[in-house]
Amino acid sequence: MELEAIAKRIVDKQGIPVTARDVARAFAAVLASEDIWRIVDLASLPVLATCEALWAFGERGWVRFAGGRVLATPEGQEAARALGIRPAQELPCPRCRGRGLELEPFRDLLRDFQRIARNRPEAAQEFDQGYVTEETTVARIALALARGDLAGKEILVLGDDDLVSLAAALTRLPKRVAALDVDPRIVDFLRQAAREEKLALEVVQHDLREPLPPELLRRFDTFFCDPTESLRGYLAFAQRGISALRGAGCAGYLGLTRLEASLAKWRRIQMALLEAGAVVTDLFPNFHEYVNWPYIETMRAWPHLPVKRVPGRYEPWYRSALLRIELVEEPRVENVRYRGDIFTDAEAATT
Amino acid sequence: MELEAIAKRIVDKQGIPVTARDVARAFAAVLASEDIWRIVDLASLPVLATCEALWAFGERGWVRFAGGRVLATPEGQEAARALGIRPAQELPCPRCRGRGLELEPFRDLLRDFQRIARNRPEAAQEFDQGYVTEETTVARIALALARGDLAGKEILVLGDDDLVSLAAALTRLPKRVAALDVDPRIVDFLRQAAREEKLALEVVQHDLREPLPPELLRRFDTFFCDPTESLRGYLAFAQRGISALRGAGCAGYLGLTRLEASLAKWRRIQMALLEAGAVVTDLFPNFHEYVNWPYIETMRAWPHLPVKRVPGRYEPWYRSALLRIELVEEPRVENVRYRGDIFTDAEAATT
Repeated sequence: MELEAIAKRIVDKQGIPVTARDVARAFAAVLASEDIWRIVDLASLPVLATCEALWAFGERGWVRFAGGRVLATPEGQEAARALGIRPAQELPCPRCRGRGLELEPFRDLLRDFQRIARNRPEAAQEFDQGYVTEETTVARIALALARGDLAGKEILVLGDDDLVSLAAALTRLPKRVAALDVDPRIVDFLRQAAREEKLALEVVQHDLREPLPPELLRRFDTFFCDPTESLRGYLAFAQRGISALRGAGCAGYLGLTRLEASLAKWRRIQMALLEAGAVVTDLFPNFHEYVNWPYIETMRAWPHLPVKRVPGRYEPWYRSALLRIELVEEPRVENVRYRGDIFTDAEAATT
Repeated sequence: MELEAIAKRIVDKQGIPVTARDVARAFAAVLASEDIWRIVDLASLPVLATCEALWAFGERGWVRFAGGRVLATPEGQEAARALGIRPAQELPCPRCRGRGLELEPFRDLLRDFQRIARNRPEAAQEFDQGYVTEETTVARIALALARGDLAGKEILVLGDDDLVSLAAALTRLPKRVAALDVDPRIVDFLRQAAREEKLALEVVQHDLREPLPPELLRRFDTFFCDPTESLRGYLAFAQRGISALRGAGCAGYLGLTRLEASLAKWRRIQMALLEAGAVVTDLFPNFHEYVNWPYIETMRAWPHLPVKRVPGRYEPWYRSALLRIELVEEPRVENVRYRGDIFTDAEAATT
C-alpha cells in the first residue's frame, strides 16, 4: 500500500506514469548504492520520478540525505524486508559491459576515432546535446557490421553529436555516409575531419523539425538516430529516419532511455514504429553510456534532486538502450514539418 | 534483380515472406561457412526459406553441394562481389557468448542444475519439444534476477521442457514457483526433483490449448514461456502467460526464433504483445542455444535440406532470441480454448 501511495504521488505531482513496482525499483536502487547518480541510473525511471520517490522515502524515514549521499536507515531496511525488496543487481558481463559484442577487432578504429574526436564541440543544452562515450559509438558500429548494415551500405545519421558518421566512415566499409545536424559546430567539425582523413562523408546542416530534403528520401540502407525523448520529438526523428530508408530489409538504430521515457512512453513509441512498417529485432538496455555534459547544474532535473553533486566527466550514470528496427513493409510515414517545442514533456530531465 | 527473383521464388513456393535483403543474408552465411547448420543459423531466416535459397544459388552455379558441404564457387564469389555481399560476421563477446550477462555468480547453481537435469526426459516431437542448454536456462534465471523478477516473486513457467522452474526454485529466491506442462514425463520429473531437493515447486499437468485454471489467473509476478512458433500458437501461449500476471510492472520472458518465424511474423507478434498492454524492455538475439533433439531426421525441414548431415548433440545451430516484456497496463487478453493444430504454419521447421 505504501508503494502504491508513493506511485500515486508521483503520477499526481509529476504527471509521470509509474507503478508500485517502479517505486520498488527505486528503493532497490537505494539499497544498492548511496550515490545519487548510481541510484538514478539503477532505478531505470524518469529522473524526476526517482527524485520524487526519494523525497517520499525521506518523509517516511526510510532514507536520510547526508553528506551528499542517500542513506537507507534501519527503518528503511526494515521496510524493504517487509516489502520483499532486495538491493538492485545488474550482473553485466565485465568484458563487453553488457553489450554482448567483442570490440577487440575495433581497437584501431577506436584509437583513430578518439584521436580525431579529441577536439569535438562540447555538448550544448541549446540543441539538447549530450554525447555517448567513444567506446559506445564504436560499439554501435560493431553491431551494425555484425547485422550486415554497414559494409557496402548507404548510411544516414540524423543528428550527430555522437559522431557516428565519422566512426562509420573511418571503417572505409560503407558505400556512402551522410550526416544531418542543426548545429554549425558539428557540421564544421565533421566536414573538417572528412577533409583531413579523406573520408567519403557528406554533412548537411539541417533542422530535423523540417521535412527531409527530397533527395534524401528512400535512398539509404541504414539510419542512426538518438532522438530527443518527448513522445512527439522521438517519433518525429524516428520517422525522418524511416522515411530515408529504401524499403523492406533496411534497418534503423535508435537510442532510448529509461531516464526520460517511462515504459508507457516506450510502449507508444514501439507501437508507432510497428505501425510505420518496422519490427524491433534487437533491444539492448544500457548499450549507450554518456559522457557527462557541462550543463548538469542547469538541467531541468537538477532542482529536484534531494542531494546535489556534480558527477565527474567519465562517471557514467546516464545510459540508454539501443533499438535496432528493420522494415518488413514499405515505410509508412509522412515527411511533415513540426513547429514549436518538440523537445520537452513531463518526463524530460536534461533539457 | 537476381536477389529479388530468388526472394519471389521463396514467397511463391514456400509461402514465407522474405525480401531481397533476406536472400543476401543467406548468401552472406554461405560465404562465412561451408557447414549446412552454421549456414542455417547465420542466415537468420525460416529454415525452409534458407533451403529454398540454397537450391536457387545452386541452380545459378553460385554454390555446389559436395561431401555434405555447401561450397561457394568462383562464380558465386564473383556474384557476391558484384552484389556487394560480404561474409556474415557475428562478433559475439567470447566471455558471455553475446548475452551481456556475467554467469560466474551462478556457478554453483549451474553445477547443481546439471547434476539434476542429467536424467531429464528426452525431447519429444509429439509435444514440439527441444530444450535449451543448461547454461542457457541458468542465463535466463540470471537475467530475471538482474531485472528484479526472481527474488521474492511468484513465478509461473508455461511449458517447461527447459526445466526453468527447477533452476528458478534451486536459487531458493522466489516466493513461489509453479510449472505447467502437458507431458507427463516432464511433470513427473519435476515433481520428483522437487521432492528430492526439497524445493518449493508446484507442477500441474496442463495442455496450454486449454484455458488456464482460474486459480492461476492474475496471481503471478513473472512468467516464462518458450512458445510454439506458429502465429496462432505463439500468441495463444504468450496470452496465457500475460493472463497469469497480476498487473502493471509484472514481466514475461519469451523465446522467439528467426528459424521458424519471419520478421513479418515477429512484427505481428510484437503488435499483439503491445496491444495486450505490454512493452518490450529487452530483446537479445541468440540468447538461447538448443541441444539437438533426437528427431532431427523426421522434422519438417529435413527433406528440404540440399545436403544432409545429422548435427552433433552439442553443436548449437538452433538459437533463439529472448524477449522480456513488462505490463504497463492491465492485461488485455482472453482466456479462451484453442482447438486443433496450433503448432504448424508455412514457416515451421521442426514440428
